[in-house]
Amino acid sequence: MKQNALSALGRRTAPPAISWLMKTALARPKLISLAAGFTDNSTLPVEISRKLLNDILRSPKTGQPALQYGFTAGENNLRQLTAKHLQKLDGGHDRAHSPDRVIITGGSQQLLYMTLEALCDEGDIILVENPTYFVFLSILQSRGLKARGVKLERDGLDLVHLEKVLTQLKKTGELRRVKALYLITYFQNPTGATTSLAKKSAALALLKKFERAAGHPIYLLEDAAYRELSFPGRADLPVSQEQRIPTIPPTALTLPGAAERVIYTGTYSKPFAPGARLGFGILPEPLFTTVQRIKGNHDFGTANLLQQLLARALATGLYDRHVAKVQKNYARKARVMKQALAEHFPANVEIWASGGGLYFWARLPKGISAGVKSKVFQTALKNDVLYVPGELCYADDPARAKPDNEMRISFGSASEENIRKGIARLGKVLRKFLQPA
Amino acid sequence: MKQNALSALGRRTAPPAISWLMKTALARPKLISLAAGFTDNSTLPVEISRKLLNDILRSPKTGQPALQYGFTAGENNLRQLTAKHLQKLDGGHDRAHSPDRVIITGGSQQLLYMTLEALCDEGDIILVENPTYFVFLSILQSRGLKARGVKLERDGLDLVHLEKVLTQLKKTGELRRVKALYLITYFQNPTGATTSLAKKSAALALLKKFERAAGHPIYLLEDAAYRELSFPGRADLPVSQEQRIPTIPPTALTLPGAAERVIYTGTYSKPFAPGARLGFGILPEPLFTTVQRIKGNHDFGTANLLQQLLARALATGLYDRHVAKVQKNYARKARVMKQALAEHFPANVEIWASGGGLYFWARLPKGISAGVKSKVFQTALKNDVLYVPGELCYADDPARAKPDNEMRISFGSASEENIRKGIARLGKVLRKFLQPA
Repeated sequence: MKQNALSALGRRTAPPAISWLMKTALARPKLISLAAGFTDNSTLPVEISRKLLNDILRSPKTGQPALQYGFTAGENNLRQLTAKHLQKLDGGHDRAHSPDRVIITGGSQQLLYMTLEALCDEGDIILVENPTYFVFLSILQSRGLKARGVKLERDGLDLVHLEKVLTQLKKTGELRRVKALYLITYFQNPTGATTSLAKKSAALALLKKFERAAGHPIYLLEDAAYRELSFPGRADLPVSQEQRIPTIPPTALTLPGAAERVIYTGTYSKPFAPGARLGFGILPEPLFTTVQRIKGNHDFGTANLLQQLLARALATGLYDRHVAKVQKNYARKARVMKQALAEHFPANVEIWASGGGLYFWARLPKGISAGVKSKVFQTALKNDVLYVPGELCYADDPARAKPDNEMRISFGSASEENIRKGIARLGKVLRKFLQPA
Repeated sequence: MKQNALSALGRRTAPPAISWLMKTALARPKLISLAAGFTDNSTLPVEISRKLLNDILRSPKTGQPALQYGFTAGENNLRQLTAKHLQKLDGGHDRAHSPDRVIITGGSQQLLYMTLEALCDEGDIILVENPTYFVFLSILQSRGLKARGVKLERDGLDLVHLEKVLTQLKKTGELRRVKALYLITYFQNPTGATTSLAKKSAALALLKKFERAAGHPIYLLEDAAYRELSFPGRADLPVSQEQRIPTIPPTALTLPGAAERVIYTGTYSKPFAPGARLGFGILPEPLFTTVQRIKGNHDFGTANLLQQLLARALATGLYDRHVAKVQKNYARKARVMKQALAEHFPANVEIWASGGGLYFWARLPKGISAGVKSKVFQTALKNDVLYVPGELCYADDPARAKPDNEMRISFGSASEENIRKGIARLGKVLRKFLQPA
């Protein structure tokens, strides 16, 4: 009996792309990790959580419901507050922000997973930004789905390339397998790019145009995980010629037709607390109903106690005040990293700075690899500094090799001191390999 | 464009079997629900949770890690405490209780879901007790899997029937599709039956015997969701001739070969708090590694804050003390229901009482339907009392109709007064239809 009993999905599900990075980090206690997208421990809302949980658990009247089962789609008060919060972020727009289509999940990751379950059969295609969130690529892979990459520019998706890819898929008869376009629209992981509303609108129109040939809706899946990690006002930002802070654009939910075609996902993990593990989605029918049923099969609904915590944080205004503090903290750390990059990195490394989020994106001159097996990466590791090789963030493409000259560098969890030290170490490594021969 | 974009899974995923029951309940405010398997609000650990969350969030040192990301398989302290807790429940046995194979999940439901993902391709077969947990049947249906029912006796699985089913599957060449036998071994949902260790052992041996013909392992999936809801000691139990309290048998984890073939799932939802939504599993390799990776794709790991809460409850002994209280409460409510059943139900209704859990199982004389469309059910509804029709708990079987003369009656969430009233109402309905003509 040689065969094991695993399913095709089970056999396909690979170890996480960064699990070996994490193991490496553990094995080198002095290593400074600029790899992880963790949030900063010092910003976590310990005192707020204590106060609010105390309020909830002070009386059986509020405590008991919080410790009981709830509704599969989430607690009604949190669904309503979430819709209201998103409307506010979108400048009062209420086109497609109905609380009836909000579902609360265990992080936005769970929403992404269940959406793919609801939408995709093995062999289906999701269009992704190239580069994109590498865990999303892992999910596609494990579920037997194909990622088709669309070029990314500094201000978001390359629309000309999107049309080219769609046209190509139509020609090869693969368009009927395309179910959605996945965009990380704010301070993108890994590049920091933010997509303008005009680009979202044009992308939505393009998808619509190709729907007839596809034979079914093609959704715009907008992942706004980093949206609330914007850097506040210019005053607090790194002085820079190359960098202009974009005004934060509204979501695709504000566009005509959004209620039928835009799947929006957001999270309370990054701006509030990953340990409270709450995300949410707004979905068009029949997806909303389907994902709600799938959620019932997964877990009946996300932990009520945490939902009540977030609902109180939102209702009391403590959430907004906390987010403002978080934003300032990341803006400061981004400035520290930016100054260190200017000081230590060779001038011919292109840096994509961002108006928010957790990452800088660094592009080495073509021909210099920063990939997993490269001398740059290995030497960096020997010098106790870790980054995410950009190549991990690219969709497989038989037609061309993945770019391997890029790095995702995070200021999320490292201290200011370690950001300075880490970038100095990395700069030293780069100067060694980028020096004119 | 008539087609929607849903996947086959999306199209298959049906509304939950009891969603219309719940809607019905909401539409009749005076209705007494003996249907839901909810836990009793009054037993929820409001004060304990407040104390322990305060302790965790009192200082940044313990508060920050609780609000940060954790490990995918769960926090190490909770994994260790869970393994230790199970060892204790199993009388000190440590054969297959390694914390290294423990995974913490969002309720045990999530563990069941991910285990099926890891094990089963569309068309695969899971053997189930007939009747069984109806949500499990829904999951199988949505994932395109087949449930094959094995008869259930008052002391667990009918082993003769299990062998017959396996032999039959071998003959038809379907054995290679059989991946696991799913047993709810303690105070079963819906019947209250508890499976003896001898029966678990014999079932495991039978599965092993048929593995060669299957070409792969066939797992014993032991769902112990109700295990800790046992009624304490005889003194606290209903006086009864028909009912003998079974000593609670150890899990299949104590059997030889368990580390390779037994998947065990348990929950902290029922004995502690559904609103803290924690379950766990112990899995053999390669399943443990595979489910851990799948968990990474679902949500990276269950909310840390809740894991820390449970870890403290276990470590301080507050958990054990709480469970003892919960057990007494359910024992008392079971006794109230039992007395009401004796008083109000016709003598020719067979009652399966249990030594724990949340349910009584009532069997009407053959030929009298208690099914969803039956006069009994509809009349009960008109008289404002709700139960779960037993037919919902049976696997589809083209060879024979589902038994429809049974009812699952829960004393979980109703008050003692409502238990008395509800059973009186139900008894009146039954007397009407069971009276000799």
